[in-house]
Formats: sequence, structure tokens, C-alpha cells
Amino acid sequence: MSTPSLLILPGDGIGPEVMAEVVKVIDWFGAKRDLPFEVSEDLVGGAAYDKHGTPLHDDTMARAQEVDAVLLGAVGGPKYDDLDFSLKPERGLLRLRKEMDLFANLRPAQCFDALADFSSLKRDVVAGLDIMIVRELTSGIYFGEPRGIFKEGNERVGVNTQRYTESEIERVARSAFELARKRGNKVCSMEKANVMESGILWREVVQKVHDADYADVELSHMYADAGAMQLCRWPKQFDVIVTDNLFGDILSDAAAMLTGSLGMLPSASLGAPMENGRPKALYEPVHGSAPDIAGQGKANPIACILSFAMALRYSFDLGEEATRVEKAVEKVLADGKRTADLLGEDGIEPVSTSEMGDAILAAL
Amino acid sequence: MSTPSLLILPGDGIGPEVMAEVVKVIDWFGAKRDLPFEVSEDLVGGAAYDKHGTPLHDDTMARAQEVDAVLLGAVGGPKYDDLDFSLKPERGLLRLRKEMDLFANLRPAQCFDALADFSSLKRDVVAGLDIMIVRELTSGIYFGEPRGIFKEGNERVGVNTQRYTESEIERVARSAFELARKRGNKVCSMEKANVMESGILWREVVQKVHDADYADVELSHMYADAGAMQLCRWPKQFDVIVTDNLFGDILSDAAAMLTGSLGMLPSASLGAPMENGRPKALYEPVHGSAPDIAGQGKANPIACILSFAMALRYSFDLGEEATRVEKAVEKVLADGKRTADLLGEDGIEPVSTSEMGDAILAAL
Ligand SMILES: CC(C)[C@H](C(=O)O)[C@@H](O)C(=O)O
Ligand SMILES: CC(C)[C@H](C(=O)O)[C@@H](O)C(=O)O
Repeated sequence: MSTPSLLILPGDGIGPEVMAEVVKVIDWFGAKRDLPFEVSEDLVGGAAYDKHGTPLHDDTMARAQEVDAVLLGAVGGPKYDDLDFSLKPERGLLRLRKEMDLFANLRPAQCFDALADFSSLKRDVVAGLDIMIVRELTSGIYFGEPRGIFKEGNERVGVNTQRYTESEIERVARSAFELARKRGNKVCSMEKANVMESGILWREVVQKVHDADYADVELSHMYADAGAMQLCRWPKQFDVIVTDNLFGDILSDAAAMLTGSLGMLPSASLGAPMENGRPKALYEPVHGSAPDIAGQGKANPIACILSFAMALRYSFDLGEEATRVEKAVEKVLADGKRTADLLGEDGIEPVSTSEMGDAILAAL
Repeated sequence: MSTPSLLILPGDGIGPEVMAEVVKVIDWFGAKRDLPFEVSEDLVGGAAYDKHGTPLHDDTMARAQEVDAVLLGAVGGPKYDDLDFSLKPERGLLRLRKEMDLFANLRPAQCFDALADFSSLKRDVVAGLDIMIVRELTSGIYFGEPRGIFKEGNERVGVNTQRYTESEIERVARSAFELARKRGNKVCSMEKANVMESGILWREVVQKVHDADYADVELSHMYADAGAMQLCRWPKQFDVIVTDNLFGDILSDAAAMLTGSLGMLPSASLGAPMENGRPKALYEPVHGSAPDIAGQGKANPIACILSFAMALRYSFDLGEEATRVEKAVEKVLADGKRTADLLGEDGIEPVSTSEMGDAILAAL
């Protein structure tokens, strides 16, 4: 295969800082492991708006469609709060997801042993936690029509539409079952089938896919509100969770926070295979753009570096190299290196964003 | 005023058991405090379906409109899983909420000191926690049209519609601000204004109501996914949270579980004032029908009893009597009485549902 290509979109806030550390890791793979990547860089979100007046330029969109994988930092910031909806930084990210058709968003919620005490949950509830949330990412209420703010009589009404077709549900269910087979072989599907017809269809299709092709995987169904509860109560009961775009947004953030490792959590958004067999793919940290600490060297680059590790695994079939990165991160944490977001009460001096990146390089 | 009237709808699963204990408390108020209530009882949910073929008979609906307050146990159970959507137990509850126009659902998430160790969260994160979630209850995606499962080309599509008018948002925002003034004077409004136009309208109207009439209350806005995170991380940052029907469903369940006191949490659903000045009102525990333990005397009646305490406070302006009930519950817990759901590792023998009720009566 030709040299794998990466498009880097650092975005806003702490995005550029954390991405700079990822670039070091990418370069390391070229220099030390004879695994070169062809890297290009571009703008997204507020940064793209500032330059082009749109949160994602068409050229950037086209380039994203061509590369083997996109790495994204983060988008958004208070500076853009008053922009029209269609120009907000988030629309850039949502356009990438939609036009690349990245329907399966993989969000591991893992608790790093060295960090278990950072969780607001008790150690035994979270230590060793390792769940994978598979969130549908290209449909549902994020994209359904009609949508907007309309005049109705003498007042306005805000409208959004949740819409799921059978095939949209089916393909993300397949992703979840496939993943489960490589993990704990258990899938829990979450919706509100007791109140929403879209949830009824969701449950039915997930069950049908299971019975037809994945009967070996253990499947359960849970209402999303009960799911939120169970995630807080005893998250280790779960292996893979599959859910829709909006529930996935909320439940995966709650799960991420449970681990106490928010600045540590990566994500992969995958679509259908391209001609070269690789899936369309975008990788990004779960955390946001954190404008309050941007530009101060305080940000934790680990989530973004681990997102690149996910790229190695899911785009380039380099599982061992991915594990190498993950082990390097674990080692650095075990050695007591901490960015400012990870400071407990034991008086460790924090390292900067780039010091953390360097430490991970050294551990590689 | 004439004798206040109550309609009791025990419902399904553990509903009848826990409601039997509430009735003891109601009777106690008549006998010992000269506060008699005129009590009638009827069916809802699966129980109503079994008798009438509908989860809420029209006569019951009419009666609910007439009384001063409705007390509901819980609805639902696996027995009804395969019923048509319109016949499911939940539809009975949803019809009550909608036709009584109970737009403000008050869900306190409180951590009882004696129970702080039951939380999966660390003691210092939850001890003393006292937040109030105000969930919009009669609109949004629970009721919006169009909805259903439709044929489209050669596949089916599941559709639900999120719809909020300005006045729907305004009235629930007012409820939240009013409540905040009697508490910590802080409201946090949650939506997804970064992705949903209904969220944009929500944020705008809440802000407008604030600026016009509640500028003395501290108002903040948060995306619902960040809200889920912050609830898990440091829930004490919140006083009153106001949010829509679906986000409220999930966030309030997560918050309830955080406290470790799920079997303890009541709720009030309030509408506009009736002719006698009392609001339309329905009170119910936050927990569900728990079919797995139904009929075994294991259920915890406290949430349902505290729901009656909320009725005393919000429907009958008997705040002191409400506090009397709440204090009795606290005393019983401090004395070490525990139903089976509250057993830790210290080898206490559980008391039954009715023993817990009796203990609370004794403490009254
Ligand atoms: C930034 C925002 C549009 C996005 C979402 O709501 O999907 C974010 O919260 C996420 O979870 O990736
Ligand atoms: C039983 C169900 C319809 C209900 C809801 O979704 O509102 C319940 O979960 C609740 O929160 O009261």
C-alpha cells in the first residue's frame, strides 16, 4: 500500500496545542519504526470561520474525503457563541461526520489504573473499567428534518426531528456486535422504546440483526434513563453499549467522566470501507476545546495521542503499534507524570502539554 | 376549604405495596393531626389494562382532573412488553401528565446522610447533596407530532418530533426561577443549543424570562452532555437545574442514582392553579415498578411516602407537616432501619415494606 495519508485539523482552543504533541508521535513512527505518514493540515471550526467565514471550507471537506484518516483536535469557544447556527464551529465537525458518513462513533470509557482515584466514584466501582460505547453518529435528531425555529400563530416554536431508518440502525448494530466479539461478547442497546416510536424500531432492528447474525453475542436492552442510572451505579456490568446519536452524546460523556480520565479518552468515528479497504475515519479526543485554559500549555495531550493510537488500530491495522502507544501512556502515568488536569492532593508538580508529549515519546 | 381530595393510583409491580404504606400515613394525618383527606383509589398502567383493556380508563382520567392531587405508585412490567405502543402501561401515565397539563416535574436529588455510603460516588462528593431538577413534562419529543413508524421506499423509518413553543419554555422556566428563590437562588438551564434549534429557542427564552423578571437569580446555561458530566463530577455545584422532557428524564435519573438513595426519591408534577388556587398535581416516586421484587415485601416505601410529603407542601401548603414526615424518615434511617435495597455490608437485617411504614408512623 502507498504511504498512509492523514489530514490534521487542530481546530480551536486547546486543539492546536494537543495536536502538536500528536505530530511528534507521528514523526516518531516515521523516523523510528519506518512507518511514515503523509500529513497535511487544515482548519476547522472557529479557526476556519475566522479565515474563510465558514466552519469548514469545501476544499477541506474534499481533502477529508480523500485521506486515509482525519485527526481532529476540538472545536468551539465563547467567541463564536453569537454566530448564526449554520456558521457555528460545531457545524464544521457535524458536516465532516455527515458527509464522510461516519456512522459508528467508538468511545471507549476506560479507567487508567494510575488515575482511578481521580474519579468522583469509589475506586472499586471504576478501577479496571473498560467499556465501549458505540454511538450512531450521522442520523437521529442531529440531522433529521424538519428542523428550525418557526413562527406559529403569535409565537415561535423550536423543532427538531429524530429519524432512524432500519438500515441506519442495522449498520451501527453490526459495528457494535463485531466489536463485542473482540471484547467481552456482550452488547447492551439503549433507547426509550417506552416513549418513542423511533426507539421501538431501534430495539426491533437491533434484536433482528442479533438473532440473524450474532446470536453468539449476549444482547440486552435498556431504557436510556435506566442506562444512565446503571452507568453511575455499576458501570462494570457493561461491555459494549450501542445507542443513538443524542443518547450516545450524553451517556458517553457521563461514562467518560465516571472514569475520572476525561482528558485521557479518545474516540474513533468510522464509516464504510473505502476502495483501499480502509474505513472512512475521523479520530478525535472526547474532551472539548477548553477555551479557559487554551494557549497556556496546561492541556493534556493524552486523549489526542490515544486517538492517533485508535487510528493505528482501526485505520491501518497496526494493533501492535497502537498498543505500544497505549503502553507508553500508561508507563508515563505510572511514573507519576501529570498534566494540570490530573493533579490530586499529593503535591506533584504538573508537567506542561509538551513535556507530557516528550515523556510519552521517551517511553515509546 | 373543603376536605382535600386525593386520588390514589397504585399501578403495577411494587406500586400497590408501597402505596399501602402511604395510605397508613394519610390515615395517621386524619386521626392524629385532624387533617383528613378524602381518598379514592383507581387503576393505572398494566393494572388498568388487565381490567379495562386500556392503561387509563376515561373515568379515571376525569376523576384525576377533579381531585386536589393524584398519588401514583409506578407503572410497567415485562408482562406488557409486547402490547401495542398505545396500550403500554406508560401511556396511562403519559396521558395523565399531558391532559392534566403537568408541565413542571420537580425531582429533588437529595442525599440522606445516613445513606451517603450507598452511593457509588465518594462520600464527600454526595454527602449533603440537595439539588432540584425541574423537568418540562408535557411537551418535547414525548408528545411532538409527527411520530410513528412509517414505510419509506422499501424500508421503515422511526420518527419522533421535538417541539417547544416559547410559552411552553417560559412557564417551566418561571417554575424553576420561583423555586430557586426559595432555595439557593441559582438556576442552570441545560439543552443542546449547539446542535438543536429547539435548544437555541430554549436558551433564548430562559434567558429572556430571567432578564425580565428574575434578574436576582443567578442563571447559567450548559450543554446537556456537559451537564451529565458535571453531575457526575461535582453535583454540588448545582442548585436548580431546568431542562426539557427527554434530557430531564435522563439527567434526573442519573442524579437520583448519584445520591445512592434511589428508593428514597419523590417527585411532584405540577400544572396551572385550579379554581381553588391549588395547582393541578401528581406525585410519584422516581423509582419504577421493580417487577423483579414485586409482592415480596422487599420494596422501599420511602420514596412514595416522601411523594406524599411533597403533596402536603406543594398542593396543600402544609410545609410544616411535610417536614414532619421528612424528619420521621430521617429518624428511622438514623436508627438503622433499612429495607433490602439499602443493605450495605454491615450485616443489618432488612425490614419489610410494611415494617418500614410502621416505623415511620411510630416516628411521626
Ligand atoms: C461539539 C458537539 C457538536 C459534539 C456533539 O454534540 O456530538 C460533542 O459534544 C461530541 O460529543 O462530540
Ligand atoms: C415510565 C416512563 C414513561 C417515564 C418517563 O420516561 O418519563 C419515567 O421514566 C419517568 O421518568 O417518569
